[in-house]
Amino acid sequence: MPATQSELAAFMSREFPQTKCTIVATGDFGATVRHEVGTGELRPGDTVSGPVLMTVADVALYVAILAEIGIRPLAVTTSLSINFMRKPPSAAAIVGVCKLMKLGRSLAVGEVNLYSEGLRDPVAHAVGTYAIPPG
Amino acid sequence: MPATQSELAAFMSREFPQTKCTIVATGDFGATVRHEVGTGELRPGDTVSGPVLMTVADVALYVAILAEIGIRPLAVTTSLSINFMRKPPSAAAIVGVCKLMKLGRSLAVGEVNLYSEGLRDPVAHAVGTYAIPPG
Amino acid sequence: MPATQSELAAFMSREFPQTKCTIVATGDFGATVRHEVGTGELRPGDTVSGPVLMTVADVALYVAILAEIGIRPLAVTTSLSINFMRKPPSAAAIVGVCKLMKLGRSLAVGEVNLYSEGLRDPVAHAVGTYAIPPG
Amino acid sequence: MPATQSELAAFMSREFPQTKCTIVATGDFGATVRHEVGTGELRPGDTVSGPVLMTVADVALYVAILAEIGIRPLAVTTSLSINFMRKPPSAAAIVGVCKLMKLGRSLAVGEVNLYSEGLRDPVAHAVGTYAIPPG
Repeated sequence: MPATQSELAAFMSREFPQTKCTIVATGDFGATVRHEVGTGELRPGDTVSGPVLMTVADVALYVAILAEIGIRPLAVTTSLSINFMRKPPSAAAIVGVCKLMKLGRSLAVGEVNLYSEGLRDPVAHAVGTYAIPPG
Repeated sequence: MPATQSELAAFMSREFPQTKCTIVATGDFGATVRHEVGTGELRPGDTVSGPVLMTVADVALYVAILAEIGIRPLAVTTSLSINFMRKPPSAAAIVGVCKLMKLGRSLAVGEVNLYSEGLRDPVAHAVGTYAIPPG
Repeated sequence: MPATQSELAAFMSREFPQTKCTIVATGDFGATVRHEVGTGELRPGDTVSGPVLMTVADVALYVAILAEIGIRPLAVTTSLSINFMRKPPSAAAIVGVCKLMKLGRSLAVGEVNLYSEGLRDPVAHAVGTYAIPPG
Repeated sequence: MPATQSELAAFMSREFPQTKCTIVATGDFGATVRHEVGTGELRPGDTVSGPVLMTVADVALYVAILAEIGIRPLAVTTSLSINFMRKPPSAAAIVGVCKLMKLGRSLAVGEVNLYSEGLRDPVAHAVGTYAIPPG
């Protein structure tokens, strides 16, 4: 029932052809995704825009959940809460590392640490909840 | 010191040329922005993706703040929390209506109701905080 | 099926005998509750402690939901998010004004403005979600 | 400049005489606190009330911050966001384990896992931000 990383990658490129997120790893109730940063992702102050970080958090959660329960496209975010902690430099990709804290029958909760690739301290931290449709 | 709607529109198109948000109204400690929905904004289930709604919330807050304090590009989101309440239909634009709840010297807090254009009940509700750089 | 204010007051004093919240008003998808502030509610800085404000928010939401759906004690908070905006003076009671934004079959979402009695601007703002057990 | 556990315990019992939280450990950008559960902490469903969990989260954050920066009573919560994940049994104390994610000059961000004593999976997870007054 779980989905492999390559099944998830195929699903994402089919259903979200416009996404710039790639899947780096899945498994163990978690997932790591990566988002290249180009001119379109920047904002004044030579830094990455907030919505890019929120997008990475949302995708990391979605991938972590589908990796466990299998590909059920209709799982939907019900809430997301993010704190921005450090200014991400404009030259580094954003990496989101999700860890699921609860995976119930109808609700999942996970946290995502967001990093500027190559830096140690997370630039942001998000917590999200997902509603899981009946299997 | 406040910025007019046309000054804000010029600022947004210069600094965020990739944004699909347009400014509908500003003033009275609030702002309304609108985001067209095309194929790139959809997700499985014939609905609008969560990150699009988060983006609209973030832009609505940013515009509402800059409308009051003037154009200070370095104001940055410090947190954003969103609840998704109803499924936005794929055919309608997303409209974000922001109301500032606090506008202090260094911190602003606002809420944003997010609507599918033409529908009465909001599809999502967000609360965000912004750090304001010294003027 | 809705519950009246006196039914709710009786329920609260039976099930939460230790609560200091009283119900001021209910109806129209909302509720107002009030919490006296005494020495036990203060913290350094001559102000009201954060947990008191969170408690008022939680009770206001619970009362607003039960007022609509009737007394189902097993409705439980699934998330709560609060922003503290102004310092509540130690001498004023806290008043929580809840407005439900969504009341679905299994999930409710509401916001609560928290006031120091007699002051105009809210001291805090909360958003909470409740899981509603099958009726 | 950091405060020891016994200094923090003395401070808490002096400034928050009504608190039922005791400090279990501090250090390494974290803190563990414990809250006994008695009749006054319960709610219908034979479980612990949400505000008790929020209180433990708030105290754990406060203690973790003061342990690092020294006793500055005027540090105040600016936001707190909590997800309730599992039903805490009524017979177990609540233990909050805080880990600071950012400790800046004027702002701290931390997360708190909340446990029913003796159980492995957290019953709730909170993220809070604190404003730190000038030292």
